[in-house]
Amino acid sequence: MRIELICTGDEVLTGKIINSNFSYMAQKLEDVGLSVHWGTTVGDDRDSLLAAFRLAGQRADAVIVNGGLGPTVDDLSQEIAAQAAGVPLVLDEAWLVRMEEFFARRSRIMPPNNRKQAMLPQGAEFLDNPIGTACGFALTIGRARFFFTPGVPRELRRMLEEQIIPRLLAMAGLQGVIALKRFHSYGLGESHVDQLLSGIEAMVPDGSIKLGFRAHYPQIETKLTVRGRDAADISTKLAPVEAEVRARLGNFILAEDDQTLEGVVLAALIARQATLALVETFSAGAITARLAHLPGAEHVVRRGVIARDLDLVPGAVGLSHLLLTDAMTQDKVEAVARAARDAASASHALSVLIELDAGADRIDLGGTVWIAIAHPEGVAFRRSRIVGGREWVRLGAAELALDCLRRFLQGLPVVERIDFEKV
Amino acid sequence: MRIELICTGDEVLTGKIINSNFSYMAQKLEDVGLSVHWGTTVGDDRDSLLAAFRLAGQRADAVIVNGGLGPTVDDLSQEIAAQAAGVPLVLDEAWLVRMEEFFARRSRIMPPNNRKQAMLPQGAEFLDNPIGTACGFALTIGRARFFFTPGVPRELRRMLEEQIIPRLLAMAGLQGVIALKRFHSYGLGESHVDQLLSGIEAMVPDGSIKLGFRAHYPQIETKLTVRGRDAADISTKLAPVEAEVRARLGNFILAEDDQTLEGVVLAALIARQATLALVETFSAGAITARLAHLPGAEHVVRRGVIARDLDLVPGAVGLSHLLLTDAMTQDKVEAVARAARDAASASHALSVLIELDAGADRIDLGGTVWIAIAHPEGVAFRRSRIVGGREWVRLGAAELALDCLRRFLQGLPVVERIDFEKV
Repeated sequence: MRIELICTGDEVLTGKIINSNFSYMAQKLEDVGLSVHWGTTVGDDRDSLLAAFRLAGQRADAVIVNGGLGPTVDDLSQEIAAQAAGVPLVLDEAWLVRMEEFFARRSRIMPPNNRKQAMLPQGAEFLDNPIGTACGFALTIGRARFFFTPGVPRELRRMLEEQIIPRLLAMAGLQGVIALKRFHSYGLGESHVDQLLSGIEAMVPDGSIKLGFRAHYPQIETKLTVRGRDAADISTKLAPVEAEVRARLGNFILAEDDQTLEGVVLAALIARQATLALVETFSAGAITARLAHLPGAEHVVRRGVIARDLDLVPGAVGLSHLLLTDAMTQDKVEAVARAARDAASASHALSVLIELDAGADRIDLGGTVWIAIAHPEGVAFRRSRIVGGREWVRLGAAELALDCLRRFLQGLPVVERIDFEKV
Repeated sequence: MRIELICTGDEVLTGKIINSNFSYMAQKLEDVGLSVHWGTTVGDDRDSLLAAFRLAGQRADAVIVNGGLGPTVDDLSQEIAAQAAGVPLVLDEAWLVRMEEFFARRSRIMPPNNRKQAMLPQGAEFLDNPIGTACGFALTIGRARFFFTPGVPRELRRMLEEQIIPRLLAMAGLQGVIALKRFHSYGLGESHVDQLLSGIEAMVPDGSIKLGFRAHYPQIETKLTVRGRDAADISTKLAPVEAEVRARLGNFILAEDDQTLEGVVLAALIARQATLALVETFSAGAITARLAHLPGAEHVVRRGVIARDLDLVPGAVGLSHLLLTDAMTQDKVEAVARAARDAASASHALSVLIELDAGADRIDLGGTVWIAIAHPEGVAFRRSRIVGGREWVRLGAAELALDCLRRFLQGLPVVERIDFEKV
C-alpha cells in the first residue's frame, strides 16, 4: 500500500518551525509495519494545495494531510479538499454543537470564525478530535483515501493513533493487532547493537517480528514491531524474543518503552528510600537538571553542587585543603563523593569530575571523566575518557554518570567497557 | 522565481531523523528574500527520485536537492540526476585528486567506493565542498536549474551560503548584496513585538528592508533583511532602522545576531572581573548548565547550589535556622543570595527560588519565582508568577532569571512587566 504525507502551512514551508510532525507520523506508521513513500510540503496557498492533493490522489492509496484545519482565513484544507473532490462544503451540525460545548466548558462564547471548522466536504467521514476544535475527516480524492489531521501535535498524535492507523491497517489488509516493544541502551554503537541482535527476527519464522533502531547520541533505541492475531498471540511471539534481546544486550539496557534513564534512576532511589547528593564540574548542572525537576525528586535530590574550577570542588563539600589539580587520583575522587554525601546528609552521592582538554573546541578534544558513587557501604568508582569535542564530552559524561548510578542501584557492574570511550 | 526543495534519504522519509535541513534551507533563503514554493521528501529509491526530479523540473525555476551524494550504494543522486537530464556520468578528475588528498592528509588510503563521489553528470557545473568528500553540482533538468547538495548539515550549510545562494540571487535578478540583522528578546510575545515595530519597514521607502520573526519560547527573534548595492548602501539603510528597533524594543533586547543570553551575561561578568555563585531549586541546574559550560566560565562561575526542597536551601549556603516554607518573603530570599555570595567568595550571586503549585502537571499549573541578585553594593530583587505547566514554568524561570542578571549587569531595571507573567 502506497502512503503519502502532505504537510501544509507557511510556518513549515518557510522553515519557521521544524517539521517534527512529519517524522512523528512516519515513525508511527513504521512502528505498525506501514511505510511512507513520498512527502510533500506546501504553504497556505490554494493553487499549491490543490496541485498537491491532485498529484497525491493520482499516485497513492492513502494520504495523510497535516494542518490547515484551524479557524483563520489561511486555514484552507477543508475548502481545497472539497474542490479537489468536486463536492460542496456542508455544515456538520454535530461538530458545531461539540465546539460550542468546548467553549462553554471554558466559560467562553465561541467566536464566529470557529464555525468554519465545522464545514466539511459533503460525504466526508468524520474523524473525532476529543481535545481540540479542529475535527479531522476522511475523503476520497482521485484513487486515494485522504485523512485530514490538525497541525497541533498532541491533537494529531491522538487522531493518528485512535482514528487513522486502524483504518490504514484495515485498508492494507493487515489483520489482527500490532505491538511495539522498545529498549533503550547506552554504551553500544548502532552497528554493534545490530550485530549483537543478528538473527533475532528469525526466532519467529513467519516474519511477524521486525527489528529497527533509532540512534540519538548518546542513546540507541532498539524497536521490535510485532504483528499478531490478538494480544495473546503477540505475547506468545514476543516473550522469547524480548527475553533474548535482554540476554544479548544485558547490562546495557537502561530502560524500556516510555521509561527514561533519569526516571529509572529516580525510581530505584525512591524504592530504597534513598536520598542523593550530586557534584558536577564541566557537566555544570546537566546531570542534576535531568533528574531533579522530575515529580517525586523533591524528596530524593537533597543537594547538587557545581564548580567549574576543579580546585573549588573540595571546599564546596567541606573538604578544604584537598588539592585535585596537582594530580587526580581515585582516592581523592572517592573522598569528594564521601564528603558530598556527608555534607548533604544523603544516603548516596554521585560525583562527576571532568578534566577537560585545554585549548579551543575541536573534533579530537576530549575529557577524562572521574565518577564516584558514595553509598552507605562504601564507594563505587569509574574512570573513562571521551573524545569528540566539548558538546560530545558534556553529553557523554552526563549519560555515563547517570548510567553508572543506574548500574550501581541495580546491582550491576559499574565498570564495563563501552564503545564510546578511549582507553 | 519559483524554488523547490527535494530532501532525499530513507532516514528522513521514515522519520528516523527529523528533517532539520529543510527548515535550515528554507530559512536561509527567506533571509535573503527568496521563497520556497514546494518541498518534496523521497527515499533512496530510483523510481521516486526520478519522478521527483522530473516533476520539480516541470514546475520550478530552481531546485535544491539535499542528500544522496555519499559513497554507498544507496546514494543515488548523481546517477538519477544524469538519467533525468539524459546524459552519462563522467569522472571529474580534479575532484578525484582532491578526495585522494583529503584522505592522505588524514593518513588514510581512499577506499575504492569513494571514487563514485567524483562521477558527475556530463556538463554539470561543479560546486565545491571544502570540508567533505561529497562535492555538489548544478545541472539543468526540464526547465529548472538543479543544485545538488550533501546531507551532512555543516557541509550543506557552507555550500548553500558560498555557492548556491549567490547563484540563486543572480538568477532572480536580485542585484547587490543582502544582509541579515537579528535581535533576540525575552518578555514580549510575538504579536506584541510585531505591533511595537509596526511601520518599521516603511522607514526605507524602496522596500529593501523586510521584517520577520521566529518564536521559540521563551525567546523571540526579530529579523531585518536588507538588500543594497553594496555594504555601504546596506549600512546607510540599516543604521536608522536598527536604531529604531533598539529604541522600540529597548530593554527587552537581550542579544543580537549570534550572541546568546548566557553568552552576554558571561561577557558582562568577565568585563567587570566578577565571579558568580548560583542557587537553584525547581530549575534544578538548568540555569547553571546554560552558563557554566561556556569557554571562559571556569574563571567566573565559582559555585552552583541546587536543592529541590526549599527548606534545604538555607543550610546549603551556610544559613542554618532560616525557614523558607512557612512564608517566603523578599527579606529571606535576599538573605539567601547574600549568603550564597559569601559562601562562594564570589562578587555576585543569582538565587532563584521557585514555589511550584502542588498537584499533577496541567496547563494551568504555575510557579512563583523569587529572584535575588546579590552584589557588592546590595541586592536586586524580582518576583514573578508564571503559569503553563511544569516545563513552561521551568523554562520560563530559567530565562527570566538569566535575563534579570543581564539587566542588572547592564544597568537596566530588573523589574519590568513582561507578557508571560500573571500579576
